Amino acid sequence: MFKTAFPSKLLENAVSEFANLPGIGKKTALRLVLYLLRKDTIEVEKFGNAIIELSQNIKKCKICKNISDNEICEICSDESRDKKKICVVENIKDVMAIEKTAQYNGLYHVIGGLISPMDGIGPGDLKINKLIDRVAETEPKEVVLALNSTPEGDTTNYYIFRRISKYTPEITMLARGVAVGSELEYADEITLGSSIKNRIRFTFN
Amino acid sequence: MFKTAFPSKLLENAVSEFANLPGIGKKTALRLVLYLLRKDTIEVEKFGNAIIELSQNIKKCKICKNISDNEICEICSDESRDKKKICVVENIKDVMAIEKTAQYNGLYHVIGGLISPMDGIGPGDLKINKLIDRVAETEPKEVVLALNSTPEGDTTNYYIFRRISKYTPEITMLARGVAVGSELEYADEITLGSSIKNRIRFTFN
Repeated sequence: MFKTAFPSKLLENAVSEFANLPGIGKKTALRLVLYLLRKDTIEVEKFGNAIIELSQNIKKCKICKNISDNEICEICSDESRDKKKICVVENIKDVMAIEKTAQYNGLYHVIGGLISPMDGIGPGDLKINKLIDRVAETEPKEVVLALNSTPEGDTTNYYIFRRISKYTPEITMLARGVAVGSELEYADEITLGSSIKNRIRFTFN
Repeated sequence: MFKTAFPSKLLENAVSEFANLPGIGKKTALRLVLYLLRKDTIEVEKFGNAIIELSQNIKKCKICKNISDNEICEICSDESRDKKKICVVENIKDVMAIEKTAQYNGLYHVIGGLISPMDGIGPGDLKINKLIDRVAETEPKEVVLALNSTPEGDTTNYYIFRRISKYTPEITMLARGVAVGSELEYADEITLGSSIKNRIRFTFN
């Protein structure tokens, strides 16, 4: 009797590599691999090499820890950006999300996680000391705390606030409130409470 | 303003390669790539190389067209298998599915698709001529038609049946009937009708 369900070791390897990815099970992995098998070798090499090159050559920006192709990322080296503003985010997805809004023109600092005593993550495990050094050194006009609106985010916000407040005149955080386009009756009461307490002057924009 | 949402060209390449895969959108692609970024370079190289090697080195079995690491696949070269039986399947997923049942001990023939006039796929676009040559040459005791139970599958079954019936004494097809473990009231009437018309002698197994 045939030993394994896979007719080929090469196939099995590729499927198990795909199945290691988060949210991808054996069936999806097989579907993806069979899709790649129908493609030209050149295209599949392009796929594999894009991933390998990423892993081999990607750098973290020396200043903000955002990922970058160079020592200093495109944002930190962009002369048109306001270097006196630092926005603190958890990870590079958050950088990308804020960049997409086109509403912020300062620099970033990626701390790589949130303080979470439950998971044993303290300030020392994150890049918070680097942030504090950077703020102490550059004395920015404003530091925006743009961490998740969760207990861990709030804890981290508070910790950073305490450590940097002597080096910067203004520390801001993201407005919490009712999502744009959503109906009031579906907003949870804490969000709604926060949005009425921190209500802002009416504007058109 | 920052030109693109991606802080790195390498990242963007990897994400767009992932997003080319079926069922994987930009967001999932980014999530997968960021997961790989957190891994060691060695592991990511393993991932990329598994895919590249698959594409470069995979072969199709000369006999049955199943994918294989060698010229002749493990099934065709397995001496313990019954070489006088050929099971006709659409693709290698079907080979794997039937192998998993451990109920079949013959060989396979992968035709790579189904006849579908609607999609402009005729017998010439599939590996049906190779199948007919093989049956004519080897004169197997039995040919099992294990194609999908769809109009395209039925058409292809019928076409193959007409072409090979003079070379083999027995042509069988998969039993169509009520799924094991399912309740009668949920079976569609055509399936139920087929399963009562083709009822089989009661056995314990």
